[in-house]
Amino acid sequence: MERVGTVAIVGVGLIGGSIGMALKVRGGCARVVGIGRDRAKLDEAMRLGAIDEGTTDLASGVSGADVAVVCTPVNRIAADVSALAAHGPSDLLITDAGSTKGRIVAAVEGHKEARARFVAAHPIAGSERQGAAFGRADLLDGRLCVLTPTSRTPADRVRRAEAFWSSLGATVFLMSPADHDAALALTSHLPHAVASVLAASVPPETLRLAAGAYRDSTRVAAADAGLWTAIFRDNRGPLLDAIGKFQDQLSALKFALMADDDEAIRACWESGREHRLIYERRESSKNR
Amino acid sequence: MERVGTVAIVGVGLIGGSIGMALKVRGGCARVVGIGRDRAKLDEAMRLGAIDEGTTDLASGVSGADVAVVCTPVNRIAADVSALAAHGPSDLLITDAGSTKGRIVAAVEGHKEARARFVAAHPIAGSERQGAAFGRADLLDGRLCVLTPTSRTPADRVRRAEAFWSSLGATVFLMSPADHDAALALTSHLPHAVASVLAASVPPETLRLAAGAYRDSTRVAAADAGLWTAIFRDNRGPLLDAIGKFQDQLSALKFALMADDDEAIRACWESGREHRLIYERRESSKNR
Repeated sequence: MERVGTVAIVGVGLIGGSIGMALKVRGGCARVVGIGRDRAKLDEAMRLGAIDEGTTDLASGVSGADVAVVCTPVNRIAADVSALAAHGPSDLLITDAGSTKGRIVAAVEGHKEARARFVAAHPIAGSERQGAAFGRADLLDGRLCVLTPTSRTPADRVRRAEAFWSSLGATVFLMSPADHDAALALTSHLPHAVASVLAASVPPETLRLAAGAYRDSTRVAAADAGLWTAIFRDNRGPLLDAIGKFQDQLSALKFALMADDDEAIRACWESGREHRLIYERRESSKNR
Repeated sequence: MERVGTVAIVGVGLIGGSIGMALKVRGGCARVVGIGRDRAKLDEAMRLGAIDEGTTDLASGVSGADVAVVCTPVNRIAADVSALAAHGPSDLLITDAGSTKGRIVAAVEGHKEARARFVAAHPIAGSERQGAAFGRADLLDGRLCVLTPTSRTPADRVRRAEAFWSSLGATVFLMSPADHDAALALTSHLPHAVASVLAASVPPETLRLAAGAYRDSTRVAAADAGLWTAIFRDNRGPLLDAIGKFQDQLSALKFALMADDDEAIRACWESGREHRLIYERRESSKNR
């Protein structure tokens, strides 16, 4: 494991806080500096042991850093990367934890100084909760972290980014930004959209009669509106495609129901069941 | 708590097995007789302590029973109720555990002997798993059990059904069959349909990139196709209405995304979030 000197974390919420905790617990670096707009959140992250010190001044926070991780909402990441590149040392590695990649990478690649230091990343872990108080040192443990370097990303920074994310316990996986966004539209953004729409469709006065299916299917609908609006907007093309696929499948079930067609309803159900069982087999083989 | 002599359970799967276990653990009756088609499943239920004895002969199984609970799939319940009424003692209470009520109640009310003994019930608890091996004595503990008596249901049987389901730890709640089916279409059948359609929409080759939202949102898609095809067909009117509501909400989100309208996307998300938070407050006040 590569041990680095100072890691700066921009945005000490659930993900940023968890990264800080993992660095501290695993001894992945000598010092963790939190950078944020809100002094109270930085103080809380210090109390929680996620960072060693906190500052609201990005320029001073990044000045002595070897690695900077941007954990702000996706609509702020590209600007934060540029600011870090402008104020950080020339050998700085900048990476991020955003749920979308295409637009962020394109924006960063428009700035030479930023492009030379940045390796886009998406650690696939999270929660519907916000804030470092919900952070956990093992949040990334055994989880996938997708890196999306392009032909313009320096190879040495890719190697350092792989070492950094691996040092947090994640398994690193490389994809293009476009492939990442198309896949995540299906595996994460569509499930979030569907959870939210489902929650909106069930009237509060019937919730007394809700059981396990509602409870689990709508869990992520409790997440922050600002974060998810930004993710949906960033990835609207692939998400619209994914919603279209979902609408087609839902229409198939609806028509089968309208026709009261036993075989067709069963075929719809079996198709979903088959995919879910593939997922369960994959997960259980991972945990073995 | 009313203690009864013999309870016959028709169908010793997850729900029937759990009811048997709850009766044994809580001492709710002197003897539990399992009735089923499959000798091996009856033997397993005996091994698991869910029933005292098992028989494949419904007539002999119900002959000495005070209460009979029908835990078969919804498309078999009405026929099983009629058979129990034909072979059971005159003071028998028959109840069921089906997820739909309107069609079952209408079918049973067409038979005088069955109608005189039957109180339709739906204990709102379950799982995507099948079989008594997944049963638990506390499955109904603190859960709601909806009874749907009509003007033709004898009042003494309603009182006995309330006492019976309460003795298993459930909180009894009375509704009309139509109100039950309309509410459950929204709180259970729609979430199951959406989970299944979502699972069908996400291609297996992308599942490596699935995280918590997919995992929880598609859990119930692993349930048995036959059971859910029967539930969907039984409740297709209300379920189609619920799917229509969901489609309207999904279209609203889709149009907001197509327009890249920040305010409109946020409004869609906030509407789902608000309902989910109402649900979470209700649940946490229940558990306090």
